[in-house]
Order: sequence, then structure tokens, then C-alpha cells
Amino acid sequence: MTNTIRLGLVGYGNIGKSAEAAIEAFPDMEGVAVFTRRNPETLNSKLPAVSIDQILEYKDQIDVLILCGGSATDLPEQGPSLAKHFSTIDSYDNHGEIPSYFSAIDASAKENGNTSVISVGWDPGLFSMNRVLFDSVLPSGKTYTFWGKGLSQGHSDAIRRVAGVKKGVQYTVPIEEALDEVRSGSQPSLSAKEQHERVCYIVAEENADKEKIEQTIKTMPNYFEPYQTTVHFIDEETFENEHQKMPHGGFVIRTGESALENQQRMEFQLKLESNPDFTSSILVTYARAVMKLKEEGKTGAFSVLDIPLSYLSDKTPEQLRKDFL
Amino acid sequence: MTNTIRLGLVGYGNIGKSAEAAIEAFPDMEGVAVFTRRNPETLNSKLPAVSIDQILEYKDQIDVLILCGGSATDLPEQGPSLAKHFSTIDSYDNHGEIPSYFSAIDASAKENGNTSVISVGWDPGLFSMNRVLFDSVLPSGKTYTFWGKGLSQGHSDAIRRVAGVKKGVQYTVPIEEALDEVRSGSQPSLSAKEQHERVCYIVAEENADKEKIEQTIKTMPNYFEPYQTTVHFIDEETFENEHQKMPHGGFVIRTGESALENQQRMEFQLKLESNPDFTSSILVTYARAVMKLKEEGKTGAFSVLDIPLSYLSDKTPEQLRKDFL
Repeated sequence: MTNTIRLGLVGYGNIGKSAEAAIEAFPDMEGVAVFTRRNPETLNSKLPAVSIDQILEYKDQIDVLILCGGSATDLPEQGPSLAKHFSTIDSYDNHGEIPSYFSAIDASAKENGNTSVISVGWDPGLFSMNRVLFDSVLPSGKTYTFWGKGLSQGHSDAIRRVAGVKKGVQYTVPIEEALDEVRSGSQPSLSAKEQHERVCYIVAEENADKEKIEQTIKTMPNYFEPYQTTVHFIDEETFENEHQKMPHGGFVIRTGESALENQQRMEFQLKLESNPDFTSSILVTYARAVMKLKEEGKTGAFSVLDIPLSYLSDKTPEQLRKDFL
Repeated sequence: MTNTIRLGLVGYGNIGKSAEAAIEAFPDMEGVAVFTRRNPETLNSKLPAVSIDQILEYKDQIDVLILCGGSATDLPEQGPSLAKHFSTIDSYDNHGEIPSYFSAIDASAKENGNTSVISVGWDPGLFSMNRVLFDSVLPSGKTYTFWGKGLSQGHSDAIRRVAGVKKGVQYTVPIEEALDEVRSGSQPSLSAKEQHERVCYIVAEENADKEKIEQTIKTMPNYFEPYQTTVHFIDEETFENEHQKMPHGGFVIRTGESALENQQRMEFQLKLESNPDFTSSILVTYARAVMKLKEEGKTGAFSVLDIPLSYLSDKTPEQLRKDFL
């Protein structure tokens, strides 16, 4: 077990819980502790729960910290501050702010000889890798990203705030005709609303005015009004049985012509029964890359675009060439 | 144009011709010459055609050589010998011999301060990258590779040797039911023949015994006998109109369970109207990676698994983080 990578988790929401479980599936990883802002005694974790205030006491026991917080408020504050003391991995996904987040982490990490990988997951993450790959190998073409079928937390929260809604979830669903059109190679111009529809499953309060609920949702500005929206009313039992998971996924597709006027299509697909489970599995995988970058003396911030695929594997380069190339 | 990458091509078959055209599509690339074992005057190339015997005279004019020969006899000889004098990229695809080919190239390149990337293309190549990615991020699961619908040169040659066959092509086609079964997550055990069927289009000689042709093909050991094989007889005009391209493609699919017992599926797809066009476009792309590795002082042999995706792009790391991450 000399080469075991020792991981700490910061935060114990959906990602933190999934990451704790994921670590067990990786034979070369070991979980040390979960750090939390809550009272550690209230955490139902398998790993020891420790107050975030004590995290610096763990510097020598942890190789890589997985930051499991959200991009809105947690990571912008925790990321740069923890990268001063630990090598870190996070799933920062506020696309517009990535350049400044990268700079902040890079400064903290470099100054202190640490190594951080930011924006790890599937989008940003595996989808980004495919977007770069596709754009690079086929310069003349157009790349599309579709998301779903997937549970949208923000939209689900929005419908649950509508009067008369007892329970509700919203799925973002790629429009099949748009996918077909993209795959045909015609390179259509499509806005987000032409690529995706919104499907809601709702348990109404007793005696609620369902027609009014449906109207309120469908006319909600920004969230639903611009989109093709469908509202299904279901009973509570069905809701409990069929809508408790957090599925997600999507498609990155590029079509284009190669030099001798031949149509080429590349496509990357994910179909995930659990979004946080998959995201955290990727986060944990990248701990191997952090260790390899550290061995090479590379410090500062990195993204998934900067890291060779062999760094993600627990297999040797020889094994990979023999069995995977 | 100071940063233009100067490329030489070795060989002018399907890959060489496509590579010559591909170079024009890459704004940061420039073709210098095509080197050939044939009489250069017989080559119908746009780039200057030069005898392979004069290739060493071009050492200072070429940054990277793209080796466009075949894996059976050309590359095992040309690869290690040219890697002594040039940085090289090839599409060596004899999977079983990759480790020894890698070692031979690595020795030649390292000794002489050159940088070579071997086995570039889509399989080995993009498919290999996805196999490693999939295996790394989802340790509990099973990965499948399907090829096609694609023209198989070897099988097409085999049917053209059958008495009474005037013209013929063979396509390897993934079996739809097998794809569905794999995607379902049931992780079936499937042999190559349970994943693929073989479909032949044949123009028969006048008065040929079609029934006998069909029987001869379907019972051909190794090539067709183990497979579900369909033989279509078509007229010569249809053959000329519909079977002159070299389409190919395929699927890499992994299904598995993440830690909290959720089903996850990853899939990479290619649908190519021209296999040599796409392969050569990837070969040319990797010239950027060779230049970046050289800048870092990295010499020896590399595979696609050793190279970060950002090295494939003509965009800066900042641009990639801003627009692609």
C-alpha cells in the first residue's frame, strides 16, 4: 500500500457523499477525512468527519484534497485559499469565470509548491476534452453540445416554488429532431432552446388548480417561457419511485468536411443514472494525475486539457500501450 | 508565417494523398515534399515529389515527417530508420506488435534527439484514448469496441479473388442488437463475430454462377465462415456510383456501475465518409504535439496516450480555457 494516494474531502453534499463511495472503488486510493463547516458530529459519513477549521493539522496526512463544494459561493473562496496548503481538485463549472478562477488557483498553488486541477467532471471536463479534440483534428466543421436527459437542480427548485406544487422535478431533454439534424452534417444554427426541451413531473397539492400551475410554469421568464415545456402531473407514489435519482448526460457532436470533401462525424455521449456519482468518480481519478504532475515537479493550476490520458490510469505506460492502444 | 510547421510526407498511397490535402486545411502547417520509392516523375502530387533516396538532403527543411506507409512491411522498416534523422508521426496499427515497434522507434529517436509519435489515427488513436479514459474514470465496468460500418480492404481483396467476381467490396457492419445489448448495461460476453456482420456488394462476370460465388464467399475460412455474411449482387453502374468511397467508423462503449450502484454509460462514435481522409487529418494534427514536445526537450517515442489534448490545438491554453473548457 506504499503508493496509495491519500485523499481528503471538503464538503459532504451530493458530490462529497459520492466521492467518499468512489474512493472505495479505486484500489490505489484511500480516504482520510471529510472536512465540513457543519458540526462534524452531525455528518453521517463513513470517513472521520472533521471541522474545516482543523484542516491544516492534516497537511502531512493528505496527498490531494477533493473540493466538493459548489461553484457559486464555496469554490471561489475555498479553492484559492486551500490551494495554498494542499494540492487540490475541484469541479468549478462557472464557465464564464473559469479564466479568473484558474489564475487565482494558479497563483496560490505555485507560490506554495502545490498542484491543482480545476474544472474536473464531465462538463466542464470530459466534454471539454472532446470539444478540443474534435476542433483540433477536423478544422473545418461545427461542434454542438447537447445536455440531458438530465435533472436540472435550478429548474426543479423554480417549479417547487410555484403555488400548489407539492413535489416537482424538471428534466432538460435534447430535442430528437435537433440531434438528427446535427448528425446529418447540415451544420444548422441552433439556439439552446432549439436544442433542448423542458419536461416537468409534478405532484400537486390536494385541490390545487393544475391548469394554473401548468400556466405559471410555462410562462416563467427565462426558466421556461423560451422553451418547449411539458408538464406532467403524477401521484406521489410514482414520484417517489421514479424521480429520486439525479440522471444526466449529453452529447458533444462535431460534423465537418475533411480536406477531400468527405463528411466526417465525431460524437461523444454520456448517459448517467447519477450525475454526482459520475462527477465524483472523475474527480477521484484525477488524483492520479496530480500525483504524476507533482512527481515531475509541476506546480500551479492545470485543467483536464493539460493532462495526458495515461496520467489518469492506474496502469503503467507499458500496460496501456499493450492492452489499450 | 514564422511558426508554420513544415511537413514532409513519406509515401503517396491513400493516406499520403489525403495528408497532402489535409495540410492545406491547417493554417499553421506547410507541406514541403512527398518522398517516394517510385519514380518521382510518375507521382501526380501537388507537392514536389522527391526520391526517398534523397530524403536526408531535406533534414533542415522539415520539422516533422508524416509516415504514410502501411504497418505490414513499410513502417517496421521505415519508422526506426527515419526516426534517426527526423521527428516522425505514423499510424502503425499492428496492435500486437505495438510494444516492440514503440521500443524500436524510441531507441532511434532518443539516440538522435528526435521526437516521434506512433500509432496515430482513430484505432489505434482516438479509440485508444477513449478506452483509457473510460477504464480510468469508471473502474467497475466493461468496455466494448465495435468497428464499422466500414470498408475492409483485406476482406474486399479476398472476395475479388473469387472466380466469377468482377468487382467487389466488403463492409464490416456492427450488429444492431449487439450494440443495443451493450448499451443496456448488461455487459454481455461477445466475440468479434457476435458484434459484427459482413456485407458484400459484388459485380459478377457475365454468365458467372452467382450461387457458387455466394457459397464460396460464405464458406471462406476465417474471413467469412465464422461471420453472419450477406452477399448482394449489383450492376456495375450502381457499384461505380455507390461503392467508391472508403467509409469507416465505429463505437467505443463502456457501461458500468459507479460506487453507489448507479448505471453509467460512456460512448465515443465515429462515422467517417473517408477513412484515409480522417486518419491523415489526425496525423497532421499531431505535428503540433511533436513541436510542443520538442520545445520541452522531450525526445523519444510517444503515443496518443502521452499527450495532453491542448497540444493538439492551434489555440493558446488561455483561449482553450475560455472557449472550450
